[in-house]
Amino acid sequence: MAEKDDERTQEICTGAAICSVFTKLIKGFLHRDNTISEEDDMPAGKDALKGRSESLEAPDNIIGEESRNSFDFETAYARDLLPARNAPATTTLFLTKVVEILCDYVRKTYDRSEKVVDFHHPQDLKKFLDLEIPDERPETLEKILESCRETLKYGVKTGHPRFFNQLSSGMDVISLAGEWLTATANTNMFTYEIAPVFIVMEEMILKKMREIIGFPAKSGDGIFSPGGAISNLYAVNCARYKFVPDVKKKGLREAPKLVMYISEHSHYSLKRAAAIVGIGTDNVYAVKCDERGKMIPSDLERKIQIAKSKGETPFFVSASGGSTVYGAFDPLHDLADICQRHKMWLHVDCAWGGGVLLSKKYRKRLDGIERADSVTWNPHKLMGVILQCSCLLLKESNLLQRCNSMCADYLFQQDKNYDVSYDTGDKTIQCGRHVDVFKLWLMWRAKATVGFEAQINKCFDLAHYMTDKLKAREGFEMVVDEPELTNVCFWYLPPSIRDLPDGPDKRDRLAQVAPVVKARMMDRGMTMIGYQPLGDNVNFFRMVISNPAATTADIDYMIEEIERLGQDL
Amino acid sequence: MAEKDDERTQEICTGAAICSVFTKLIKGFLHRDNTISEEDDMPAGKDALKGRSESLEAPDNIIGEESRNSFDFETAYARDLLPARNAPATTTLFLTKVVEILCDYVRKTYDRSEKVVDFHHPQDLKKFLDLEIPDERPETLEKILESCRETLKYGVKTGHPRFFNQLSSGMDVISLAGEWLTATANTNMFTYEIAPVFIVMEEMILKKMREIIGFPAKSGDGIFSPGGAISNLYAVNCARYKFVPDVKKKGLREAPKLVMYISEHSHYSLKRAAAIVGIGTDNVYAVKCDERGKMIPSDLERKIQIAKSKGETPFFVSASGGSTVYGAFDPLHDLADICQRHKMWLHVDCAWGGGVLLSKKYRKRLDGIERADSVTWNPHKLMGVILQCSCLLLKESNLLQRCNSMCADYLFQQDKNYDVSYDTGDKTIQCGRHVDVFKLWLMWRAKATVGFEAQINKCFDLAHYMTDKLKAREGFEMVVDEPELTNVCFWYLPPSIRDLPDGPDKRDRLAQVAPVVKARMMDRGMTMIGYQPLGDNVNFFRMVISNPAATTADIDYMIEEIERLGQDL
Repeated sequence: MAEKDDERTQEICTGAAICSVFTKLIKGFLHRDNTISEEDDMPAGKDALKGRSESLEAPDNIIGEESRNSFDFETAYARDLLPARNAPATTTLFLTKVVEILCDYVRKTYDRSEKVVDFHHPQDLKKFLDLEIPDERPETLEKILESCRETLKYGVKTGHPRFFNQLSSGMDVISLAGEWLTATANTNMFTYEIAPVFIVMEEMILKKMREIIGFPAKSGDGIFSPGGAISNLYAVNCARYKFVPDVKKKGLREAPKLVMYISEHSHYSLKRAAAIVGIGTDNVYAVKCDERGKMIPSDLERKIQIAKSKGETPFFVSASGGSTVYGAFDPLHDLADICQRHKMWLHVDCAWGGGVLLSKKYRKRLDGIERADSVTWNPHKLMGVILQCSCLLLKESNLLQRCNSMCADYLFQQDKNYDVSYDTGDKTIQCGRHVDVFKLWLMWRAKATVGFEAQINKCFDLAHYMTDKLKAREGFEMVVDEPELTNVCFWYLPPSIRDLPDGPDKRDRLAQVAPVVKARMMDRGMTMIGYQPLGDNVNFFRMVISNPAATTADIDYMIEEIERLGQDL
Repeated sequence: MAEKDDERTQEICTGAAICSVFTKLIKGFLHRDNTISEEDDMPAGKDALKGRSESLEAPDNIIGEESRNSFDFETAYARDLLPARNAPATTTLFLTKVVEILCDYVRKTYDRSEKVVDFHHPQDLKKFLDLEIPDERPETLEKILESCRETLKYGVKTGHPRFFNQLSSGMDVISLAGEWLTATANTNMFTYEIAPVFIVMEEMILKKMREIIGFPAKSGDGIFSPGGAISNLYAVNCARYKFVPDVKKKGLREAPKLVMYISEHSHYSLKRAAAIVGIGTDNVYAVKCDERGKMIPSDLERKIQIAKSKGETPFFVSASGGSTVYGAFDPLHDLADICQRHKMWLHVDCAWGGGVLLSKKYRKRLDGIERADSVTWNPHKLMGVILQCSCLLLKESNLLQRCNSMCADYLFQQDKNYDVSYDTGDKTIQCGRHVDVFKLWLMWRAKATVGFEAQINKCFDLAHYMTDKLKAREGFEMVVDEPELTNVCFWYLPPSIRDLPDGPDKRDRLAQVAPVVKARMMDRGMTMIGYQPLGDNVNFFRMVISNPAATTADIDYMIEEIERLGQDL
């Protein structure tokens, strides 16, 4: 088999498919050699020159010599790359080497015979990895390449088909390409002037996402933010501004006592948002959930009444659209009715579950979302976009600008030569902002909405497969009987505790199973799953299926791995 | 010349330097073909299959056929890439093509005969770019590659040696490679479990940065955040927590009336932070600056006294370490004395100027920074790291955790198998957090501290060169006579207004020069510079030199371009 592969590889290269790509690439570089650098006045620490071989003085010539098989990175340094004189070919060779390492990692990521993680404790990792940052002596490019290899070797393959540990997983190749391009473009979303294409893409994608939610077509607002927690912070901040615009100037001391509502199962970032904006966590009321993790509207109603009777001002309800642990969807129409009645802001945090909107089969889970005032939706979760990619979407136009604007003239001049309403900097709580839209836009182009739908439906199919399998299997017990999203929450009961009578002793022993199994699983490194307690439920496993590369065989593998590692407990 | 290059290119490929790299690459992929995918159950929209040639059913075989010169991306789709069956070689070919486009862009970035920007107004851009997001029909891989080319074509080359528009510029190749790797690793900083290497790198780099600041070696805290504005928000939030820990729970309504101090020239994000945290912008007092833009300590002292006499609680002073427009450094020792006397928090916002700490020649600009309580320092500015890379550094240990922790059990389990103090998620105001440390770590390894020092000193040299040149040249006038950082602020006075008497008429006409010159400059697209008014000074140009690829010839070019475009005004 190996020999046969070698033959095929040979064919590929003589067949010139790859070579022709790289011939063009290098040609492009050499073509304009003389115009690249007007002077070589790039200074470097004097030690950077030590140890360079004579022949490196004109690295581009060396590459052309037939006698040399490859460029010698062991005697080259960062200073030999662009913008150094005559460095374009060296630069390409270096970046090509890096991409070789990255492509190797992509291949390993999808290779089930590879480990998901080669786990080491922090103190050990620090001992055997060479992490030192030099003051005087730069490392050679060969050492830099080695650092890249080592970093990936001891990392976690979050795109591996057997990584089920997190809401974000998978490695979409198009999205990855998009993020490489984003890094190369190396620009900033604050003004149209320096990010024209990305700005119009962002406007377009946000509009499309609002349409999918069902917000009115001609209005609305939105922003890409660095993660769901920040999107939720935006929502709380906008709602507060909407209710008490004066807070922006005068602060909260003179404002009415604002209180907000989340569910017991809401993401913790909403409570933290209350701490940050000065409302305080004591003024965040947790509404009870039913056994499936869904917020109970009558309890919300009751708690609003109590607050009002105390003279407090309820202003904000956050509903979950796919809760973090159970994957539960709160009853949006019921909550919207309550918010309408009490003139409160309805936020839907579907950071995790937002993707279901793209599935004709499952979008009913979010029925009523069109009645929300704001929505957090992270394409880097269920839609599988490379990290980070999170959006806040608002029903009302222009609210972000009014809420966050500080009118900094030096950055957002009003007398520029173009329509400055395209400058997004003054509506954010950031200043510089990373380009998060491109990788999503590119991926959406490449798979169309139907492609997202197919991959999301597949994750649901796998969650149903797993649920059925666990229910039928001795020793496993569901925490939530029928998952609403692709979280599958369950206990594994080793034989020793399986038949114990219910009670504190059984619970205590059960609580210790998941951590031990997880620790052993990390040591083996072939798969990963998360666990946690929640409310009265002691430690249980939470399987998250968001990687379309996973198959039923991977689900089977996980179940068997847990049994294998936990049966002696 | 072109023929000669062709010959050299030929040599390169037959010399096998590049080929050997890619032979290995493809070999790696084919080697494990059978273990890659256990089943091909990846669904796709049915239209995704339309138009695929028969021969594409087994794309990897095609590549091997000598009769084919290159893979046909026009009939291939995202679904033909990993995790599809037998797709590793197709995936490599596709990523290789993308990197070809990116390397071409890198070359153009450093090529002065290339435009910095091919500017078009938003409405025009939307017309001629194909931005459509399909619902039913995915685009071919060829179209995806075309989208990449188009996106870069109409973008702004922020690494071009003649781009002087922003505090962040340049394109460091090592840092770029680091960001490509970060995208490929596609993980999240919230737990050690899924980002072990990056977590220990972050700990190490933050420690090193604190040492460079001069904070005590054995304590301290810090975090990488999505930009300087968020780092400043962290600082205000931490300071507020330190002074009134109860705010976290009880909110600001019962707290004393907190007031904070910035200078007239402070970055607007500090005022916005006050709005976000519920202090309110009215409670942010702007301290006067001298003509060089440096905060006047006596004015701060006076304003603190006034506030205290009104029963307010001054708690926070933000000093600039390189202000955004003038590049001014506030007198840190004087401000630290005042903060010590009044028991206030001293924050130093050296997002822009922090890099000077790495230069023996210029670090005295930040004398006294070791007396600060918190520091914002953005390596993506003066140090030239790819966007985004910003740090908040704190003198006190463990403050972020106490301030921001919400103890979310489901994510930050305390019974894990490793030292959970390495989990950083509970000390941030984010949940998921992008890996921003790696590109900095890799770059630091590659150039050592002396390399940063050399590139930063070079930027200073260029700023001095420009200042001298402008002072000696008719028609130019300095706004700040001797810049303290690499911002060079100046007016250009066209002959028609040069000899007008000082007064409102001259000012009005001068105010219109920069916007017109800038608009014409964008149309030509060969260089870029910013402008703004500030205080009593009407629109002036702000040159920012942070790209080590720039040379004195580029400075000359800018001066001549402004004259060329503005002399008729």
